[in-house]
Amino acid sequence: MTLLTSFPENLSVAVVGTSGGIGSEFVRRLQEDDRVTCIHSLSRNPSGDSTGKVIDRHIDICDEESINAAAAEVSATGKLDLVVVATGILHRGEVIQPEKSLRDIEPGAMMDVFRINAIGPALVAKAFLPHMRPGTKSVFAALSARVGSISDNRLGGWVSYRSSKAALNMILKTLSIEHARRFPESIVAGLHPGTVDTRLSAPFQRRVPEGKLFTPSKSVDHMLSVIDRLTPQESGGVFAWDGSPIEY
Amino acid sequence: MTLLTSFPENLSVAVVGTSGGIGSEFVRRLQEDDRVTCIHSLSRNPSGDSTGKVIDRHIDICDEESINAAAAEVSATGKLDLVVVATGILHRGEVIQPEKSLRDIEPGAMMDVFRINAIGPALVAKAFLPHMRPGTKSVFAALSARVGSISDNRLGGWVSYRSSKAALNMILKTLSIEHARRFPESIVAGLHPGTVDTRLSAPFQRRVPEGKLFTPSKSVDHMLSVIDRLTPQESGGVFAWDGSPIEY
Repeated sequence: MTLLTSFPENLSVAVVGTSGGIGSEFVRRLQEDDRVTCIHSLSRNPSGDSTGKVIDRHIDICDEESINAAAAEVSATGKLDLVVVATGILHRGEVIQPEKSLRDIEPGAMMDVFRINAIGPALVAKAFLPHMRPGTKSVFAALSARVGSISDNRLGGWVSYRSSKAALNMILKTLSIEHARRFPESIVAGLHPGTVDTRLSAPFQRRVPEGKLFTPSKSVDHMLSVIDRLTPQESGGVFAWDGSPIEY
Repeated sequence: MTLLTSFPENLSVAVVGTSGGIGSEFVRRLQEDDRVTCIHSLSRNPSGDSTGKVIDRHIDICDEESINAAAAEVSATGKLDLVVVATGILHRGEVIQPEKSLRDIEPGAMMDVFRINAIGPALVAKAFLPHMRPGTKSVFAALSARVGSISDNRLGGWVSYRSSKAALNMILKTLSIEHARRFPESIVAGLHPGTVDTRLSAPFQRRVPEGKLFTPSKSVDHMLSVIDRLTPQESGGVFAWDGSPIEY
């Protein structure tokens, strides 16, 4: 099967955050693409079992040394055609909960959300963008979210998550400009996966209209199709699961 | 002299970050407005000299206890009509410098920029918004920047500063929605002061076209005029020194 038709043959891919529902599904789906020859599966808790074309590796996106070590290992095997950053936090136990009101803002929790959702992907970009394959289509994509759109914000709430994703969108836009100078055929983009049935969305699925809660498999199929259709002219943008651009 | 014509009489104002060039100028200018009766001048290093209608107070926007203590002192004197958050960081010595390239991204520096430019104003809003005067026009304004506009970003660089201001814009938009439910005549807004001759812009003034480098006095006059013209329908937006809306 060929999912990524617009890329060259013998694709090398890195997925960051593969202990999550979406990241692990990217690895599973990409294995089925006969043109993908190497998948670096990066997570905080790798199994260590590298099977077939999947190489399991360690990364902690809150630790720059760990990111640099992972980038060094990955780049030693060759250039990358696609990097997907599938990390992200919305809640963690009692400590981090999306704010219903400004009263709920807690600086420590807000800091952690920025560290994971904005600074982490920026550090991954710093370490991995220089190793993209030059002279051909390449994509660096990070999971953003429609609730990270400032102009689309009509309900309020979730201020840490929203603002961290707005920051991520700016980071991607900023890096896309610099990256295009050396890699004019490259694309840097944010992807909105839809609302996906994972641990991240689990406490909030009541609000989701029927038929709008995607399985990880369905969401990843959509996003791979978007990645396949993206062009360098669209670099720096944020795109929903159906390919439609999301305003900032 | 009356600068703030659209507000009620006997205005009470708080300016946060008055050791900076813009914050101190807000205090100086607002003293001249005969309808302003009380100005809380909040900074990390207050002189302790309270003169005329100006009350000098301590605040550290990186310390929530300090913010809450300041808000308690300020609110004990009555409701607020205008709060201006004039804090912000672009550079600090060798440690924090705006990034020319993705190679320059440093997680510690990026964290500090988010802490000061995004989380600090969010905490000030959390502590001060409940003390705005109900039933009449009130404004909570924070200094944003045109370079914090994702869609206006064509040059790249300055990734920490840009993304922290994009995060701030989202914070203001998010809080404006909740705040309007209790205070329908309120306005929460980001302001772009232009490029102003202060310590913040000092290393970067070479790039500024002739006549486009404002004195703090000129910039603050412009922003006070914008504050005076803002309407509740515009709450959540970002406005340049000339009143024009800035896209996110």
